[in-house]
Amino acid sequence: MERIEQHASFGGMQEVWKHQSAALKCEMRFGIYLPPQIRQAACPVLYWLSGLTCTEQNFITKAGAQHYAAQHGVVLVVPDTSPRGEAVANDAAYDMGQGAGFYLNATQQPWATHYRMFDYVTDELPTLIEQHFAVTKARSISGHSMGGHGALVCALKKPGFYRSVSAFAPIAAPAQVPWGEKAFTAYLGAERSTWQEWDSVALLAKAQHKLSLLVDQGEGDEFLANQLRPELLRQACTQHGHNLTLRLQPGYDHSYYFISSFIGEHIAYHAKALA
Amino acid sequence: MERIEQHASFGGMQEVWKHQSAALKCEMRFGIYLPPQIRQAACPVLYWLSGLTCTEQNFITKAGAQHYAAQHGVVLVVPDTSPRGEAVANDAAYDMGQGAGFYLNATQQPWATHYRMFDYVTDELPTLIEQHFAVTKARSISGHSMGGHGALVCALKKPGFYRSVSAFAPIAAPAQVPWGEKAFTAYLGAERSTWQEWDSVALLAKAQHKLSLLVDQGEGDEFLANQLRPELLRQACTQHGHNLTLRLQPGYDHSYYFISSFIGEHIAYHAKALA
Repeated sequence: MERIEQHASFGGMQEVWKHQSAALKCEMRFGIYLPPQIRQAACPVLYWLSGLTCTEQNFITKAGAQHYAAQHGVVLVVPDTSPRGEAVANDAAYDMGQGAGFYLNATQQPWATHYRMFDYVTDELPTLIEQHFAVTKARSISGHSMGGHGALVCALKKPGFYRSVSAFAPIAAPAQVPWGEKAFTAYLGAERSTWQEWDSVALLAKAQHKLSLLVDQGEGDEFLANQLRPELLRQACTQHGHNLTLRLQPGYDHSYYFISSFIGEHIAYHAKALA
Repeated sequence: MERIEQHASFGGMQEVWKHQSAALKCEMRFGIYLPPQIRQAACPVLYWLSGLTCTEQNFITKAGAQHYAAQHGVVLVVPDTSPRGEAVANDAAYDMGQGAGFYLNATQQPWATHYRMFDYVTDELPTLIEQHFAVTKARSISGHSMGGHGALVCALKKPGFYRSVSAFAPIAAPAQVPWGEKAFTAYLGAERSTWQEWDSVALLAKAQHKLSLLVDQGEGDEFLANQLRPELLRQACTQHGHNLTLRLQPGYDHSYYFISSFIGEHIAYHAKALA
């Protein structure tokens, strides 16, 4: 594991590391923000999953999250959005292949060899972080769009592993919208019943563990009606007894201007659960 | 004038506009953050001048400044760093030509035709902003690196036009360092006496009006000793009776991680002067 960036930020350090991933069989990068409190005591971790086309850079440069992480003494861990490299299967479209791993374990070739982002994010990466940094085992998870879907799925498939979960403009029901249908057909195959294991709305229906979720969604989001469909999330939570706080934010779009406006409230929410 | 971007941000709006500049004889873009308070009353303006290689995008996407501008009811105006376009003289180097206007009025060809960033920033742009937006005539100015130099020079050459001035890692004495020597030779010619009009340390020596300056400088800045030289700024202020607050920030580098860590304090400082 090698540190490739280090910048002082709000009294702590924003770093980027690279390492060879066993789950993904390629070199991966992640961003980690170490708040000033970590010099005195181990800190809890908030994992952030980014959206389509992002790398570890988008969130760490644009969200302004370090400010709040430093206030609350929370470590931020920000993985890339897919396996990477010349040996890794890819696609020219922005919503398939590298930059579009959808945080699942693919079963279909050419994807199945490397595309195991669920294993990476929920197992290999936390193990690595907990070995190499002064962090506690208190973890929370959040994300945006494809990464909002990822955060919900991770929390639903690993009950108890995360103390809290939130999302910004998640793809709430990928099995029912164009982005998800395209990705799931490629990564999981045409048999739609296999998709249910990676669809938050479907997972909410069968979850034993009742979940609390904080979700922010911009009402001016260009992907709201076709790709994100928060009404399906609300319906599933109401029907199956999950505690959803869904906040529709007037005028906000799908960009980091939206994320940065509310990331402070999400970090405060997670910090409370992580305390 | 045409609006080409609009994003809700911290209860206000982050916008990008383009317009034909008379001073620069080309199309220019600027970012403007309109805080929520502007819906009730005219707000004062903080101008931000960016560093080498930047456009209007860097500060508006990376500094996290909208948070504080919304708290204090301050409009942020962020011009590009040079004239732009195929008809505009350029150079392959990152520190010359487009992206490197140095906020001066060039006298040498091929630069003199378009490179009049001082006139643009201190005259044409504020006039445009004050005509088209609900702003007061209370103005302050800040900037980073080349733009920190720009902010100091603008405040020194237009006494009374800005209520307050601050800078992050400014090129304090461009006439004495490699970046400035290269740019000034090209834009102003080999005669060094003409450079004094665009050098903050030289201008501080002859200024009638005593200036108050807030300057943050990272001690881990890779350009500190060769290009930035804050000790020359300190010396000029001490010698000529200007009120400098120079804060050396341990470990901070030259990046936006540095700017974002302290922009809140700068905006609070300007908001007080603008009130």
